Amino acid sequence: MPHDFPSLAALNAAVLSDVMDGLGLREQAMKPFVRPLDHDLQLIGRARTGLYMPVYQVRDDENPYAVEIALVDDLKPRDVVVLACNGPTDRIAPWGELLSTAATARGAAGCVTDGLVRDVRQIVAMRFPVFHGGIGPLDTRGRARMVERDTRVECAGVAVRSGDIVFGDVDGVVVIPHEREREVIALAVAKVSGENRTRDALRRGELLGDVYRRFGVL
Amino acid sequence: MPHDFPSLAALNAAVLSDVMDGLGLREQAMKPFVRPLDHDLQLIGRARTGLYMPVYQVRDDENPYAVEIALVDDLKPRDVVVLACNGPTDRIAPWGELLSTAATARGAAGCVTDGLVRDVRQIVAMRFPVFHGGIGPLDTRGRARMVERDTRVECAGVAVRSGDIVFGDVDGVVVIPHEREREVIALAVAKVSGENRTRDALRRGELLGDVYRRFGVL
Amino acid sequence: MPHDFPSLAALNAAVLSDVMDGLGLREQAMKPFVRPLDHDLQLIGRARTGLYMPVYQVRDDENPYAVEIALVDDLKPRDVVVLACNGPTDRIAPWGELLSTAATARGAAGCVTDGLVRDVRQIVAMRFPVFHGGIGPLDTRGRARMVERDTRVECAGVAVRSGDIVFGDVDGVVVIPHEREREVIALAVAKVSGENRTRDALRRGELLGDVYRRFGVL
Amino acid sequence: MPHDFPSLAALNAAVLSDVMDGLGLREQAMKPFVRPLDHDLQLIGRARTGLYMPVYQVRDDENPYAVEIALVDDLKPRDVVVLACNGPTDRIAPWGELLSTAATARGAAGCVTDGLVRDVRQIVAMRFPVFHGGIGPLDTRGRARMVERDTRVECAGVAVRSGDIVFGDVDGVVVIPHEREREVIALAVAKVSGENRTRDALRRGELLGDVYRRFGVL
Amino acid sequence: MPHDFPSLAALNAAVLSDVMDGLGLREQAMKPFVRPLDHDLQLIGRARTGLYMPVYQVRDDENPYAVEIALVDDLKPRDVVVLACNGPTDRIAPWGELLSTAATARGAAGCVTDGLVRDVRQIVAMRFPVFHGGIGPLDTRGRARMVERDTRVECAGVAVRSGDIVFGDVDGVVVIPHEREREVIALAVAKVSGENRTRDALRRGELLGDVYRRFGVL
Amino acid sequence: MPHDFPSLAALNAAVLSDVMDGLGLREQAMKPFVRPLDHDLQLIGRARTGLYMPVYQVRDDENPYAVEIALVDDLKPRDVVVLACNGPTDRIAPWGELLSTAATARGAAGCVTDGLVRDVRQIVAMRFPVFHGGIGPLDTRGRARMVERDTRVECAGVAVRSGDIVFGDVDGVVVIPHEREREVIALAVAKVSGENRTRDALRRGELLGDVYRRFGVL
Repeated sequence: MPHDFPSLAALNAAVLSDVMDGLGLREQAMKPFVRPLDHDLQLIGRARTGLYMPVYQVRDDENPYAVEIALVDDLKPRDVVVLACNGPTDRIAPWGELLSTAATARGAAGCVTDGLVRDVRQIVAMRFPVFHGGIGPLDTRGRARMVERDTRVECAGVAVRSGDIVFGDVDGVVVIPHEREREVIALAVAKVSGENRTRDALRRGELLGDVYRRFGVL
Repeated sequence: MPHDFPSLAALNAAVLSDVMDGLGLREQAMKPFVRPLDHDLQLIGRARTGLYMPVYQVRDDENPYAVEIALVDDLKPRDVVVLACNGPTDRIAPWGELLSTAATARGAAGCVTDGLVRDVRQIVAMRFPVFHGGIGPLDTRGRARMVERDTRVECAGVAVRSGDIVFGDVDGVVVIPHEREREVIALAVAKVSGENRTRDALRRGELLGDVYRRFGVL
Repeated sequence: MPHDFPSLAALNAAVLSDVMDGLGLREQAMKPFVRPLDHDLQLIGRARTGLYMPVYQVRDDENPYAVEIALVDDLKPRDVVVLACNGPTDRIAPWGELLSTAATARGAAGCVTDGLVRDVRQIVAMRFPVFHGGIGPLDTRGRARMVERDTRVECAGVAVRSGDIVFGDVDGVVVIPHEREREVIALAVAKVSGENRTRDALRRGELLGDVYRRFGVL
Repeated sequence: MPHDFPSLAALNAAVLSDVMDGLGLREQAMKPFVRPLDHDLQLIGRARTGLYMPVYQVRDDENPYAVEIALVDDLKPRDVVVLACNGPTDRIAPWGELLSTAATARGAAGCVTDGLVRDVRQIVAMRFPVFHGGIGPLDTRGRARMVERDTRVECAGVAVRSGDIVFGDVDGVVVIPHEREREVIALAVAKVSGENRTRDALRRGELLGDVYRRFGVL
Repeated sequence: MPHDFPSLAALNAAVLSDVMDGLGLREQAMKPFVRPLDHDLQLIGRARTGLYMPVYQVRDDENPYAVEIALVDDLKPRDVVVLACNGPTDRIAPWGELLSTAATARGAAGCVTDGLVRDVRQIVAMRFPVFHGGIGPLDTRGRARMVERDTRVECAGVAVRSGDIVFGDVDGVVVIPHEREREVIALAVAKVSGENRTRDALRRGELLGDVYRRFGVL
Repeated sequence: MPHDFPSLAALNAAVLSDVMDGLGLREQAMKPFVRPLDHDLQLIGRARTGLYMPVYQVRDDENPYAVEIALVDDLKPRDVVVLACNGPTDRIAPWGELLSTAATARGAAGCVTDGLVRDVRQIVAMRFPVFHGGIGPLDTRGRARMVERDTRVECAGVAVRSGDIVFGDVDGVVVIPHEREREVIALAVAKVSGENRTRDALRRGELLGDVYRRFGVL
């Protein structure tokens, strides 16, 4: 996670979404077709974006991976690769084992894509957090190509810029815009406490109506 | 499960669907986009319905949760909350941890929704059966509101009224109309026996054609 | 697996897809809505195809299962049942426990369908590999009927003929056309070695750009 | 139109749908993706159904049109051909100019399909009413085949049997079940009068609330 | 049109969309599934919103049309009825001939809905502008109900509040937020002149590159 | 039309599709969501392809139209612009009036896109043939950008290369691969005659079965 926000590890996607809702940032949760490979892994870091285009031709005279190689080799510790493929898609799989290995070597925190992922078994074994828009064995060569990196993209319905905080858990992925991050995280830490009180009261058997009146949290 | 039907626990969604097919009740299985959070949990109980509408405005002067609080606080042991959101949806998540906690305190048997669920990790830990139309971190405030409860709804393609029996397992969710429940359950218990004989014969290596001719079950 | 290709067990869907891409066979991977019931089971064998049509009427005077019984009773060891339902579908579930039991008794290697599967718990317990287009409890009677077998079909976007090799793992399902199988498998065995070298170099922390230049594999 | 119901020509799809709603027949309107080729042509007659299956193979040794030739050559005056292709589809086009010509020669009243239609210019010139699920130039050979006729089908969400009345106009297509036709048509004739009174009052500028209170029709 | 903006009649949806894009208002064009009934009719006026919810039950003891009657009877000259049904939908048709007649009597300028419209022939004959998400004969009774009016809604992807300017032509529907309307309209009037110069130059055969360099308009 | 194939004008999309089917070219008809702006205009010419990618950022320092300006200014008489946007799409509208004007000035024959078109009224008035995947008022700036031209693309399901013949009429669009064009056109001319004989026989009232036996055309 960004080393200046250790408290993020104690949060979750739902509370971050709620807090951003309250601040009027209501389009920060990726659509639910994006799911984690491993339900138990949290994803926390700063976005490094890549933008894909569909192609329909294999060409011999080019390195179709040039931009994505540049992006991956430039990853910094705790970066999260965010790959926008205009998903959902059934033919573009921008992420796999070798990229996970290379990203791990750079210290990256994980990957989010609205495209497909492949080499699932190996990636799960590495415990590298990947949130994806489906699973498929297809190479991108002749199907898609990363044409821009560190540009503003939309991924599963959310605008993302390099530097924004990306947070994923089993409930999904939320994006915290860079310029609001202190505020969002502080409010989220506070809201978690409120939810704990609510939960405790409900466990004791209090009625939902009474608890909601008292704590105003649901 | 409804305490008058202990035999339900030995049944499964497929056999109940087959038996209702045979009675001409052919629209009783929810569409396959509704899946269980936990594949190992059976869901058996009587429906308590809630009907959601989409909204696009956060209002300060109202309790947006009023109807759902009333529904949850009125749950009786073995009730199953059935929340109709006109799903599939990527923005309406009517169920989460706090409602699961409150419902558990009332003795409810579980929840089915064609909307999204959040707080998945916590709900799985509680072993509260939830069948859902997807997972997402979004609060309903400003996105949807329960406007009616205990009304006839359609959830994932099936008409449900409070009092109908809801049965869910890893194969999906079926709804047994209240007025046909005795008949359906009795026939299902009988059909399970027939399938056991068929399975045993197939395991012994008999040909499918021979077995089907003998038992008429497939 | 086909006994003449023991090396298949060491391969995976992604490398087979890549190799076929390189040979111009670019439409051999099933769409990603087809998923395995059990992520840990490999599926390898030769296709035996069945083609379904939707129906909307239950008739008393027929055996609606006649063609599929004939197909299953004719299965040979290591055959893979491939059932084409024009999926994705939310109402046609051509495969279940009893057919899995019968197919196992004939030595079949598994089943792939773009339709639904039911009796999931039992099939998983049998460790019979099934790749499916969704899960649902519905019987096919009055909803669909196999009308042809061992005919050319399309399943999840891929043309399949009886005799083609079907390979499935957690990344998805690929189909190797019978007349290209030697070539495809030989190239895939070779490519796996190249990927191992690439992976090792990346694990040692080499840059992706350097490794790609050296091995040309990504 | 069925010669025993000349009053049908003065009705419209909306009033027939309303009347059937009132009788509890709430699933009688085809989905809106089925549209008329010519907005000005009414379609009235009795259904003659054909059921298609998708195929993926061209075979030399068969007449792929055998069942549809039999259906068309057996058409009686005022029959409406109803072709069920499990639409919407982008590859099955069961109707075209030559079939329209043959059907016209038999006195048929028109065609409804949830598949595609081709030869649109010529059919419009013939003033033969066709309601379709899209337009495309594809032959069915190797893509689909009619396998049953005069069987119960579902077309664009509505169950249709040969003999049911099919009524189409620019608002869409409704199906009147044979056994309720007298009742439905009589009520529709009456309702048209009520709507006329309502419309006249509204044209005079009366408030909708007043008019609805007086006539109860909206 | 709003009487204070007579210049709107000389504009078009595309230029308004471009101008709002330039101001950062990039989500003001409804999705293309909303189409005009009559391609030749312009729609200009101020929004009056209605929000629908799906229902699945016909109740005898209520006036299901109460809110929409109140909305229509309260329409002011040049108002545009905007009906949000969470479309696209194949079952909710909130608009038809009688409401068009009542709205015309109040001086309303037209209707936009992401739901269906019925009574198409009569509405076209009235020359009442309706932009819709499809055509179908279904009554809303037992299928949907307007539950709020003059509330913020989303219709075909655009947020609309009563008072916003709605502009529709054959290219689609755009919504001008009330507080930006002077600015938007002034800029659009100016842009139309630029496009005229560009068009004239292109008609004279100048190259697009030259013209774009000179006028910067495309 | 290509001046070396004047006979194309007497053909139609359906007969061309049939003939290519017979030659094993079975994927040459665009999907039916691509429709003509004007049902009466034929489109015949050679493809000039453009490939779009989605973008999510407006940048001041670039000419976002550079590649498409180059393509349009390079059009030759009877060229057909083919714009691939990975459609269907609801946000990318690559064609409009100004491009139609510029293309007309170069002698181009028309445009096909799986994206949206705008300025529909003006284009129809120009009688410039456009086949499109929907209508919408949106500019491409900040939404999409043409990044390649005269490259192999897929448009509405069909592979197209610059130089292939594009033929569109009210039944849809077909693409004739350059290297098969003589053969396809010759066979299509012949098939039209066969269909004329069939049609004449059917008009005389002969049974479809008899006519099909005699002419083998349907």
